[in-house]
Amino acid sequence: MPKIDLSVSPVDVTRQLCDIESVSGDEARVSDAIWQTLEGLDHLELFRDGDAIVARTNLGRAERVVIAGHIDTVPLNDNLPTRYETEDGVDYLWGRGTVDMKAGSAVHLRLAVELTAPAVDVTWVWYDHEEVSDSLNGLGRLVRTRPDLMTADFAILGEPTGSAIEGGCNGNLRAEIRTFGRRSHSARSWIGDNAIHRAAAVLDILAAYEAREVEVDGLVYREGLNAVGVSGGVAGNVIPDECMVHVNYRFAPSRSAGEAEAHIRELFDGFDVTIVDLAAGARPGLDAPLAAAFLAAVGGEAKPKYGWTDVARFSALGIPAVNYGPGDPLLAHHDDERVPVQQILDNERGLRAWLTA
Amino acid sequence: MPKIDLSVSPVDVTRQLCDIESVSGDEARVSDAIWQTLEGLDHLELFRDGDAIVARTNLGRAERVVIAGHIDTVPLNDNLPTRYETEDGVDYLWGRGTVDMKAGSAVHLRLAVELTAPAVDVTWVWYDHEEVSDSLNGLGRLVRTRPDLMTADFAILGEPTGSAIEGGCNGNLRAEIRTFGRRSHSARSWIGDNAIHRAAAVLDILAAYEAREVEVDGLVYREGLNAVGVSGGVAGNVIPDECMVHVNYRFAPSRSAGEAEAHIRELFDGFDVTIVDLAAGARPGLDAPLAAAFLAAVGGEAKPKYGWTDVARFSALGIPAVNYGPGDPLLAHHDDERVPVQQILDNERGLRAWLTA
Repeated sequence: MPKIDLSVSPVDVTRQLCDIESVSGDEARVSDAIWQTLEGLDHLELFRDGDAIVARTNLGRAERVVIAGHIDTVPLNDNLPTRYETEDGVDYLWGRGTVDMKAGSAVHLRLAVELTAPAVDVTWVWYDHEEVSDSLNGLGRLVRTRPDLMTADFAILGEPTGSAIEGGCNGNLRAEIRTFGRRSHSARSWIGDNAIHRAAAVLDILAAYEAREVEVDGLVYREGLNAVGVSGGVAGNVIPDECMVHVNYRFAPSRSAGEAEAHIRELFDGFDVTIVDLAAGARPGLDAPLAAAFLAAVGGEAKPKYGWTDVARFSALGIPAVNYGPGDPLLAHHDDERVPVQQILDNERGLRAWLTA
Repeated sequence: MPKIDLSVSPVDVTRQLCDIESVSGDEARVSDAIWQTLEGLDHLELFRDGDAIVARTNLGRAERVVIAGHIDTVPLNDNLPTRYETEDGVDYLWGRGTVDMKAGSAVHLRLAVELTAPAVDVTWVWYDHEEVSDSLNGLGRLVRTRPDLMTADFAILGEPTGSAIEGGCNGNLRAEIRTFGRRSHSARSWIGDNAIHRAAAVLDILAAYEAREVEVDGLVYREGLNAVGVSGGVAGNVIPDECMVHVNYRFAPSRSAGEAEAHIRELFDGFDVTIVDLAAGARPGLDAPLAAAFLAAVGGEAKPKYGWTDVARFSALGIPAVNYGPGDPLLAHHDDERVPVQQILDNERGLRAWLTA
């Protein structure tokens, strides 16, 4: 695998990375290319763990920052190779991975090579398996197997934010709420007990729920409580004895995972509640001095991140972390995934301004 | 295929019919056996249409009665061959088809051969494909292709009623009621519109519905309106844009199919309603002179039939019809399907008493 050509614009570096297909589990080639590009540089100490690569400066600076991004993508859908396109006067780079999140990883790669003496020590991370099961996540693996490499005073994750700074993230809980009844033939329904009718009360709670808006460290997080699935029924002539409502609760990072679970259990008191997924959010930590300096250098106003991201892994380690990357998160995983080229340039400029301040 | 041996008790005739497997679509062997048994009898005119057999007397009586039963069963589940068993002092014949409804068909077969000069002309019918799609139903096929054979003043269907007389049947409607919304990522649920939450109103209507009890021709029919299925959801992180509640309405025979549909459309006004199945019920017609005489001969008190049965096909032809057969309908299709032998004897005695009066 040849090196990535970094002599071109960060947009064209993004294009090179995207055109090396790397659906989760198939990251070896793009990981090899990044390794070749970084190998032999005096200012970087390199590590590889599976298809994750860590490159760090050791300048003895007072503070260290992790700057991380994943190199895998969701499956293709006829959206590679990349191409340029212009719409309403805006230039885009189109294709799988342009938003989520090789534009961010390309900017990181260029800066890792270019900035031989950044203002803070930097631990650059390119990792695998972000788009699949949590147990495979490359950043999670590094945290477990090489915690020494993950120590830092601040972390920046290159997930798409439209190149604005989005602090922290909401937590995420999924629960299955079941109602039970008794089967009977529907011609004699009074012998049975309809579990789907009993689920009306569960849906009523959801429909009436007023989601909170919660200020955390100066950012307002909007919560959400929703049915994302419902299922029940045996046959067209049978009174059903079970119904399941699949609920998703997105909760502000001021609420712990345990508190979120307690809230759901209280709300659905009397129903059968099984928690099937639970991940704490991340506080934005924008009051940390490094974060404040970063915000000042990049400019603009920080916003809350609603979707759960790997910043929560840093938050769990006590490291303040923000999301900062090119691209509209609503286009992530979209068949028409595309990033405005200007956002790639802005993102590089913002990171460079801060790291060279 | 040898003849059925009719020299034994109706219980043992039932056993012979049951032990010839005849899951719907595979009725040829049992149909052949019935044909062989009836062939060559002077008092019966025989017809065959597929695996349906019609045998009728032509005595010039003032009135004609159809006495019908199906010869297919639902699939086996290790419940053949038949066996005798006794529980709490009650003797049973156990096995697939004993209740639904070869006991009734066995009684009919014995009486068809034995009663050479019944008090009314009788059209005996053994038909196929009752347990499957309506379009395959053998009685429905005879009504379409040989309406001349189906004319009568009264009809008796041997479906299980515990050997009581159950008049008419409720109608049956199934509808799919859909709610719609707008998809979004569940991390930004306020951008979407949750179709499952909108279905809360549908379930509320169902849970609050008070089903009617309606007197028709002296019998009280109990109605029922139930969700028999609910489904919705795209993925664990997506606000769903569609939800479907599958509703089953069992309605008294005083209500026409059109009136039943209008009731459902009014009840769920504002929702998307698709009728997927609609069959009118059958009035009991117990005020007809033949029905009254039958009731008097058999004794006991007539009850309403709740489940939809093929009596509705006679009702649609303007022929009063009742259900009268051995076995508990709640055990039909059950793996432990079994019939008290006394009910087979009672059923034969009842029919014989009336036909020889």
